[in-house]
Amino acid sequence: MAEGASVGRRVEELTTPAFLVDLAKVKTNCANMLATCKTIGVSLRAQTKTHKTIECAVLQTGESKSGLVTSTLEEAEFYARHGFDDILYGYPLIPHHMPRVIALTRQLKKFHVMVDSQLAVDTLKDTPTPGKPWSVFLKVDCGNKRAGVWWEDEAGVDMALQLHNAPNITFVGVYVHCGNTYGASEPKEVLQIQEDTLERLLKFVDRLKQRGVTCTTVGTGSTPSCRQPSDNMKNLTEIHPGNYTFLDVQQWSLGSCSQEDIACCVATRVIGHYPHRNQMLIDCGFVGLTKQGYGHMDTGYGVFRGHPNLKLCAMTQDIGFVEPLEGQLDYEQYPIGSLLYILPWHSCATAALYPVYHVVEGDTVLAEWRPTRGW
Amino acid sequence: MAEGASVGRRVEELTTPAFLVDLAKVKTNCANMLATCKTIGVSLRAQTKTHKTIECAVLQTGESKSGLVTSTLEEAEFYARHGFDDILYGYPLIPHHMPRVIALTRQLKKFHVMVDSQLAVDTLKDTPTPGKPWSVFLKVDCGNKRAGVWWEDEAGVDMALQLHNAPNITFVGVYVHCGNTYGASEPKEVLQIQEDTLERLLKFVDRLKQRGVTCTTVGTGSTPSCRQPSDNMKNLTEIHPGNYTFLDVQQWSLGSCSQEDIACCVATRVIGHYPHRNQMLIDCGFVGLTKQGYGHMDTGYGVFRGHPNLKLCAMTQDIGFVEPLEGQLDYEQYPIGSLLYILPWHSCATAALYPVYHVVEGDTVLAEWRPTRGW
Repeated sequence: MAEGASVGRRVEELTTPAFLVDLAKVKTNCANMLATCKTIGVSLRAQTKTHKTIECAVLQTGESKSGLVTSTLEEAEFYARHGFDDILYGYPLIPHHMPRVIALTRQLKKFHVMVDSQLAVDTLKDTPTPGKPWSVFLKVDCGNKRAGVWWEDEAGVDMALQLHNAPNITFVGVYVHCGNTYGASEPKEVLQIQEDTLERLLKFVDRLKQRGVTCTTVGTGSTPSCRQPSDNMKNLTEIHPGNYTFLDVQQWSLGSCSQEDIACCVATRVIGHYPHRNQMLIDCGFVGLTKQGYGHMDTGYGVFRGHPNLKLCAMTQDIGFVEPLEGQLDYEQYPIGSLLYILPWHSCATAALYPVYHVVEGDTVLAEWRPTRGW
Repeated sequence: MAEGASVGRRVEELTTPAFLVDLAKVKTNCANMLATCKTIGVSLRAQTKTHKTIECAVLQTGESKSGLVTSTLEEAEFYARHGFDDILYGYPLIPHHMPRVIALTRQLKKFHVMVDSQLAVDTLKDTPTPGKPWSVFLKVDCGNKRAGVWWEDEAGVDMALQLHNAPNITFVGVYVHCGNTYGASEPKEVLQIQEDTLERLLKFVDRLKQRGVTCTTVGTGSTPSCRQPSDNMKNLTEIHPGNYTFLDVQQWSLGSCSQEDIACCVATRVIGHYPHRNQMLIDCGFVGLTKQGYGHMDTGYGVFRGHPNLKLCAMTQDIGFVEPLEGQLDYEQYPIGSLLYILPWHSCATAALYPVYHVVEGDTVLAEWRPTRGW
């Protein structure tokens, strides 16, 4: 279908698989997160990696178009081109990024980078600025064990001091991702991880303070923790979740949301009946869903909305294999050509497969959102 | 980088992750498959789903631009727009596809569809043709257990008869995918599956012959079987592999190729050192590689070319976690910013994540190939 051609059409007219976004739900999810921030008294620096669209970032920022964090330079450039500002490239900086960092620093009022290595600190110190100082966050690892200086190590304090003292750098503060909440087995554990992360982070901030370094910004995030905010989050200045826009079965399983809050799904059609093996095939394979999540759901690679007895038991590139969890498949209920809707395990991974999202209200396509791609 | 801007540059100048295609290897892989077909005495109907590019389909068809099979209508339309002909939409036909099938039938000299249901047969019989008959393959399941009429069932023979007898249909023949070769645990088993598939298919073709129905085309395929062709393949008229263009670690593990034959890889950079946990991070996460293949390789989610001691043990969206299989990581060997090359488990899944492929000769980018996407 040509660009824009699906607007005003019914979902049943779309080519499948199609990635559907429920506009009312996304709006609610975005408004709720802004309300949460207001209640806690922190800013929202919205992570854009789940959707990578202009329209959804407008909703995330309450139409201010200010205050984003991206995980790719491509996204930062995309949002900068479309009038957004106060953008953090929330990814470990390496020298190779510098030409694009220079251009973004020049282009935006506020463009920030994030460092977690001495090489990155040295690179910034040694690179002439384009008219204004580099604005820099220090990434701290408080237990997530991905990027960041380990919170207990002296190396992190030393880097913060260097950033603070460098004449061409504005040290903004510290930045933590508590992605380890995704490993939680129950909501209570999400809260505990969050508490531990914040306690460690605030201890680190105190150590900086004792050395005369003030963090104007102290941020942490992850959708599981930000959808269940704890009391001590009021000690932060900002949070930076992203998945809360669309949500998914993973968030549902972590207690971050109900099934009804999930704002995206994959529309797929039945393409064949194979009663001799109690199966049917659908036109959604791994290029339409990803294979992530298998083993976490009784229903295979996803959850069929409204059909809890269906299991997506296997996928090849463009074909999904569907079986009943129990009994015989009722083929009359699923005629060839009929539509089914799959809630994805991980919406970030599924959305990344689609060049266009169909934004719907009920069965009607209201808009097409076109994400940016690449790095 | 702007379109075309990478041509003539060195790989180390590219934004990472980047999907690299070794032109010499792709050319060899394509030429070898054409040579195999010549030796056996069959045609090659090249499957395009692995790469979805014009340039690679030109190589697959020996520059004739004739004889393709696609797994999406989008690909069929893309190739039709670019001067290709004799294209089979090799996917179970459903009524929803018909408007685009009508347009392609009108546009091309030879456009074929594939059916495996009575509904599809009825749809074709009942839809007025655009000036020439529908050209139709019957999909037969000879043990793969995906799409297709089961080879032993009478329903398949009956459908072939209906297609043969319908005044507005040209029944071309039968089409089988022996994708079950991917489940083989050793090369000998690939050969056995192939033998069984062909034996069943030829029995089915004989049953049709006894009913007065001749198959002008009898095709089967899958890269594992076509890279190790068996004697009885000479009883076919065409084969239709696709993955052989790029190959991958999965094919290597099935004995379809050597590591050196694999024509694609993901270039990635080291972005951080974390000696306190004996790890480093790279800028390739699941959006740059997919999580497919875990559990099949000692080295995690992929194979680092030239670095057999490295394991890609985990990935988030844009970050990969790398550990040594044994001992301590030698960080001096892997400076921050240095490049590594990952051979993917499943090149179809990995290629699908990239809006552009960088085609290289050694360290130099010769061309950008831009695949089509969507359905």
